[in-house]
Amino acid sequence: MRILLLVCDGLGDRPIRQLGDRTPLEYAKHPTLDKLAKQGEVYTLYPVKPGVPPASDVAHLHLFGYDTAVEYPGRGVFEALGAGVSLPRGALAFRLNFATVQQEGKLLKVVDRRAGRIPTEQAAELASSLNSELEEVAGFRCRFYSTTEHRGVLVMTGGELSPHITSCDPHEEGRPLLKVKPAKRKIGYPFDYAVAKKTAEAVNEVVVRAYDILSKHPLNRRRKEEGKPPANAILLRGAGIASDLESFAERWKLRAACIAGGAMYKGVARALGFDVLEVEGATGGVNTNLRAKFSAAMNALSTYDFVFLHIKATDSLSHDKKPLEKAMFIERVDSELANLVEKLDKAVLCVTADHTTSSMLGKHTGDPVPLVVYYRGARGSDCRFDERSVVSRGLEVYGLELMNILLNAAGRLEELDYDVRDEADYLELA
Amino acid sequence: MRILLLVCDGLGDRPIRQLGDRTPLEYAKHPTLDKLAKQGEVYTLYPVKPGVPPASDVAHLHLFGYDTAVEYPGRGVFEALGAGVSLPRGALAFRLNFATVQQEGKLLKVVDRRAGRIPTEQAAELASSLNSELEEVAGFRCRFYSTTEHRGVLVMTGGELSPHITSCDPHEEGRPLLKVKPAKRKIGYPFDYAVAKKTAEAVNEVVVRAYDILSKHPLNRRRKEEGKPPANAILLRGAGIASDLESFAERWKLRAACIAGGAMYKGVARALGFDVLEVEGATGGVNTNLRAKFSAAMNALSTYDFVFLHIKATDSLSHDKKPLEKAMFIERVDSELANLVEKLDKAVLCVTADHTTSSMLGKHTGDPVPLVVYYRGARGSDCRFDERSVVSRGLEVYGLELMNILLNAAGRLEELDYDVRDEADYLELA
Repeated sequence: MRILLLVCDGLGDRPIRQLGDRTPLEYAKHPTLDKLAKQGEVYTLYPVKPGVPPASDVAHLHLFGYDTAVEYPGRGVFEALGAGVSLPRGALAFRLNFATVQQEGKLLKVVDRRAGRIPTEQAAELASSLNSELEEVAGFRCRFYSTTEHRGVLVMTGGELSPHITSCDPHEEGRPLLKVKPAKRKIGYPFDYAVAKKTAEAVNEVVVRAYDILSKHPLNRRRKEEGKPPANAILLRGAGIASDLESFAERWKLRAACIAGGAMYKGVARALGFDVLEVEGATGGVNTNLRAKFSAAMNALSTYDFVFLHIKATDSLSHDKKPLEKAMFIERVDSELANLVEKLDKAVLCVTADHTTSSMLGKHTGDPVPLVVYYRGARGSDCRFDERSVVSRGLEVYGLELMNILLNAAGRLEELDYDVRDEADYLELA
Repeated sequence: MRILLLVCDGLGDRPIRQLGDRTPLEYAKHPTLDKLAKQGEVYTLYPVKPGVPPASDVAHLHLFGYDTAVEYPGRGVFEALGAGVSLPRGALAFRLNFATVQQEGKLLKVVDRRAGRIPTEQAAELASSLNSELEEVAGFRCRFYSTTEHRGVLVMTGGELSPHITSCDPHEEGRPLLKVKPAKRKIGYPFDYAVAKKTAEAVNEVVVRAYDILSKHPLNRRRKEEGKPPANAILLRGAGIASDLESFAERWKLRAACIAGGAMYKGVARALGFDVLEVEGATGGVNTNLRAKFSAAMNALSTYDFVFLHIKATDSLSHDKKPLEKAMFIERVDSELANLVEKLDKAVLCVTADHTTSSMLGKHTGDPVPLVVYYRGARGSDCRFDERSVVSRGLEVYGLELMNILLNAAGRLEELDYDVRDEADYLELA
């Protein structure tokens, strides 16, 4: 049997007063999800560990069976791959923000981490200027990419580089940019102090020279005249190096496809060797073409063993503190799911989230999320699909355990007996 | 948000016939704990691992996020620090019992492990004699402390010492004292055979010479005349070395305080760098001043991020096989808790136990214990607070996971993204 994994980003939530002390998922009407719960197996899922609020890339890696405490290339890799940037071996990639800073003596105080959410085409113009004026820094080649609004990617190549460096982004407005330094990070990549030191020095130089170029840029002079914050600095974080992650196909013997609107999720999928299928109207926003995505997922099941369908708006609406809109969006997902379940024949369908996003706090929390696995032969759970109902059902599972649960449901696991076979080499008589 | 952790020692229990086959916690009326359970999150907590009955110091370390299988200095360290003895770096500390032995040929058979629960002031006199006559043994300085009744502490200093030694205490009466030998113990301290051998030889000499001094001691002659067992030997166990435990503040970024009556709990807190607050009337017994302790905890929340409030009598009453008295004591705790909850504003309140103590068996067992975390935004559990109710709620958690659960409830965790920053060093322009 084939497997369809639907991840509704940030689906889990906490009770909201305006929804009658129910979570958006408890408040929403979702007969299809409830049907899946009744006939399938439900679990309470800790994406990483109890209490730990994961970033989305980290959570997804755990769902796909990759322990980020052991193997994690760094977020920049996923951002770059998601933006369609190809990473040569050894390239160092960063998440980049165009930001507004104010010089105070020798320090650069962050005023707006998003430079007033500068429009994408303006950011592209700045990236282009940086590319021509900062082609080489300290012997490394730099390439700047703008993606959406203030967001972008920096890729450095042309020598031995290390992801074991601290980040310059203070994460808070009102504080100066931090100095980048060598530091052993938990990313499963060998630590070499000398290389990390050289990398850190080069990155500091990139940040300082970018400020020099951007603060004099005519576009920023125009923005100032219009009363808008200049995008006069870059914030870099999530340094990552394209390393040797074992592919999903190798690890689980599954040919896998990804359908997602959000670039970063495509990046995670590409890093694991998924085919990323492009779907018209898949935006990663509330306006996304859900029908087209579900239909593409259904079609992909005839070609692929494993289809990962990602829906982002549940998370975005939580970050925007819109619990009612989140509940309404969940109802839309449920009704699209109804069509799919009708057509679903011999496949395992799993619906879950990568983490809880509290639409009261507007941020990720470490609370567990509901998970349902629906397949022929499931024991059935006789409960609704929401945070509290699945808890009282009593089964807990960690993100790293999901793949085995799905493979078991799909009848794809052999008995664990520790024998190995080389399926490609036959015994020959003399 | 700040965090108040209330640990009722040995709160968990097993059903007791005389309580209508209910546990003391099920039998007691505790409306406040039930309110916390209804509005907060409840869990079934395995302090260490399913089935494993932990010693109290081990259990508490796990609750504070220290894995004793990896880092554990040895119980003697906590006993010493709890008794107010300061331990210089590298000092070796033991739990000590004054005991009664009977010489049989060359062996010393243990007759009474507690020397008839010798009064504290008599034990102090013996410790004082040992200090003057056994100041130095095999080149090491020895310092004996009596604490309560037959209990005390021995601290050795003045050279390289090892906690990797066996214990001389046979743990059973009727058996001879054991020889102390080098042995690799699980305490996360480097093992050096030569140092362990030298330490073991010195400790054997201490035990033999202490017997020589104590058996001739006038106080013991008097005790014999009064028909009381002489305290003519010392039993040593829990060898521990003041090592480099990472402080609680460093590990969890929390300024922490401890309120406890029992000395050992203060010792654990001191070893982790907590401030230990002294409260008038906090005895660690049934007669403890609960109101003063709760009120001190409430006050401490205005200064500290994390307040650990320890209540011992639930455990002592279980060891004494008094389930009804345990239930009554739980009701007293509940009513003090009511006052506190009323005043508690923006704090996370967690109530749990360090282990189950069966008041039928009078000892620790490896059964899980109930845990409740009460905070604004909790999903709510709609169940009572007792062993069986929280099990049917369905969430299980290990002691080592508690700190993340509390930090998540307090909104104190950042997204797990593996980035690191040096917050103290800013980027400077040339």
